[in-house]
Amino acid sequence: MLSSIIKKGLLSNNPLTRIPRYASTSGQQTVLVVLYEGSMLILYCLIILKRSSVFSKGGDAGKRNKNILGCVENALGLPKWIKENNLENRLKLVVTSDKQGENSVVEKTLPEASVVISQPFWPCYLDNKRIDKAKNLKLAITAGVGSDHVNLEAACKRGITVAEVSGSNVVSVAEHVVMQMLALVRNFIPAYKQVINGEWDIAQIADKARDLENKHIGTVAAGRIGLRVLQRLKPFNVHLHYYDKFRLDKSIEKDLNVKYHSNVESLVKECDIVTINCPLHPETEHMFNKKMISLMKKGSYLVNTARGKIIDRDALVDAIKSNHLEGYAGDVWYPQPASKDHPWRSMPRHAMTPHYSGTTLDAQARYAAGVKEILENWLNGRPQREEYLIVDKGRVVSNAYTEGDATKGHSGNK
Amino acid sequence: MLSSIIKKGLLSNNPLTRIPRYASTSGQQTVLVVLYEGSMLILYCLIILKRSSVFSKGGDAGKRNKNILGCVENALGLPKWIKENNLENRLKLVVTSDKQGENSVVEKTLPEASVVISQPFWPCYLDNKRIDKAKNLKLAITAGVGSDHVNLEAACKRGITVAEVSGSNVVSVAEHVVMQMLALVRNFIPAYKQVINGEWDIAQIADKARDLENKHIGTVAAGRIGLRVLQRLKPFNVHLHYYDKFRLDKSIEKDLNVKYHSNVESLVKECDIVTINCPLHPETEHMFNKKMISLMKKGSYLVNTARGKIIDRDALVDAIKSNHLEGYAGDVWYPQPASKDHPWRSMPRHAMTPHYSGTTLDAQARYAAGVKEILENWLNGRPQREEYLIVDKGRVVSNAYTEGDATKGHSGNK
Repeated sequence: MLSSIIKKGLLSNNPLTRIPRYASTSGQQTVLVVLYEGSMLILYCLIILKRSSVFSKGGDAGKRNKNILGCVENALGLPKWIKENNLENRLKLVVTSDKQGENSVVEKTLPEASVVISQPFWPCYLDNKRIDKAKNLKLAITAGVGSDHVNLEAACKRGITVAEVSGSNVVSVAEHVVMQMLALVRNFIPAYKQVINGEWDIAQIADKARDLENKHIGTVAAGRIGLRVLQRLKPFNVHLHYYDKFRLDKSIEKDLNVKYHSNVESLVKECDIVTINCPLHPETEHMFNKKMISLMKKGSYLVNTARGKIIDRDALVDAIKSNHLEGYAGDVWYPQPASKDHPWRSMPRHAMTPHYSGTTLDAQARYAAGVKEILENWLNGRPQREEYLIVDKGRVVSNAYTEGDATKGHSGNK
Repeated sequence: MLSSIIKKGLLSNNPLTRIPRYASTSGQQTVLVVLYEGSMLILYCLIILKRSSVFSKGGDAGKRNKNILGCVENALGLPKWIKENNLENRLKLVVTSDKQGENSVVEKTLPEASVVISQPFWPCYLDNKRIDKAKNLKLAITAGVGSDHVNLEAACKRGITVAEVSGSNVVSVAEHVVMQMLALVRNFIPAYKQVINGEWDIAQIADKARDLENKHIGTVAAGRIGLRVLQRLKPFNVHLHYYDKFRLDKSIEKDLNVKYHSNVESLVKECDIVTINCPLHPETEHMFNKKMISLMKKGSYLVNTARGKIIDRDALVDAIKSNHLEGYAGDVWYPQPASKDHPWRSMPRHAMTPHYSGTTLDAQARYAAGVKEILENWLNGRPQREEYLIVDKGRVVSNAYTEGDATKGHSGNK
């Protein structure tokens, strides 16, 4: 990694070459932190906790469990960190979940915010309009992985740095993929429902219950998450497949006994189960449209913990209802939170969850630490870890993304 | 395997030594086949299909899907096999799911049955009273794995051979264990329920959502199923533990980096997640009683796909309700089918299923083939595969079981 940092000129192995200067901040900077509520059961209310912090207060889970760092109440542990490091005069925190509408805390705070911290689970969509409004914005941090809620093109033009805590929840998501794959193939949810409903009808469950063993399973992208999915599936004695823009080392391919496909179409034609593990950007937006889904094997399964918008919402519903696909699972939607009447909630044979795979208690500890590291580097004019950077100095520097805008603001509905 | 068959005297590598004689059958033998219905939605009705076969007829799933071999409608493929092999004069099939009460098909057929075939998913409990009644019974076959529904002590005394299709569904069950473990630790069911109920409350889910990674996971028994569970968990970067009467090879222990415990108490004290993978017999009946559960770590999880009776029903409910255990999953109950008011159905934080883990479509194909092999050997006086035999020639020959009775008939309720 160091060698590629050097290659990019951020550091140098020649002691005479100056390390490029990053200006440290001066004065008090406003940090807008947009997180989910500790409990949605209690209505949002805004209270001012102290002069330099505005919190949107939630309910019981966040208050009771201080390890839920990703919610408004615990604010990634930032208040404590600011106090312990005597940063009160340098950082003013505005923590909220209130992100919709002209009078929301987000809209009101954007003009003064130097930093916006947001999450995939409760994203603060930073579209063109909002970036225009955020005249002081210098840094957009994703507390987690996946920065598609930011219009990267606009961020490039404005010189806004976009960073995420890469790696903080890749294990969490990979585990979720394996769990949901097993749940679909083994017909778990209908079986659980029989228990709850006082029934016992084995044939009805067995009718659609299969083993994972011997199935062909393919991942679209074998990056940090996709590779971990493949590694976890290996001892299940399955046939592994992958597509990626970048081919894995031969030694990894051999060890996993995984077949490479040079395009997604080829992969879906051969697989009983397909899992999507690529980021959302213009090249992947609606990649699974009617045509791609029609190429999938009849009776196959689709698992998507990447981003909702990689799939055409209505094409998926049609494929499930017509029995072309046997089942669908995942935990990503568009927009988020998903509306009560989002058709994926009520379609048959799904095993979906709200977007939380990457925000287990273990993952929260990791991404909260990463956010603090990024803030600290920014305050002190130090370079960020290369793997955390998505947009830097006016260009997309992560090879997982392409320039452009796959967000179209928070007004889009599919 | 052959060497151990020779050691037991079933075969010999000395050509002068006679192979012990197994009498082949003569005349028509009644085979009582007790299976689950193709659909419980339609009331049972009995129809006579042909002179030599009595079927209890079920509903739509079994009729529609001929791969559900384990249900009454498809009868393990035995009718077709009998026809193809011209065995109509040697075997009379009585296929039924009707097993309760004095007027049930089971009770009426037992006096004439030479063979009883039954399943863990819809067990025909062969207690003392029924074995007394079954004067002609020579062979009890389990279509699947686990013969605890037979009083082995009584089978020994009567010289009844007890055989099961060992290995036929070990992969299916091991997959189920990993799935339910992930479902509990990652808090899957409450998350799914939010989707169905039109909700989006991430903190409420995250409150109890964890990664499997880094957790201590232990299996009680590392036989055919337990070992496969350990193998599948290895790439999840967890700390593995096991207890078994028989220690694994050093090379396997080293490869899996699994810690051996010489007793169950030691294992449960150290593990965040415990999975039970031993058969039910007098030594394991109610092994997880109040005392054993109290030794488990506070906040730990228990997964049991072995047999319901290994756990004390009410002690488990108390441990969940008092929050000593964080969650419970599994697919085994006692008796089966579980009554509508079985307290495990309604206790908090469970992710249970009816008993079907070992009856996926893939597993059914394997155990249906195994049952035919056992029947064929019996008809022709050939020895059975050693690994299929539980009771043979008046003694328990499988080292997974001890003599005695863990069944206590079908009248027990916990």
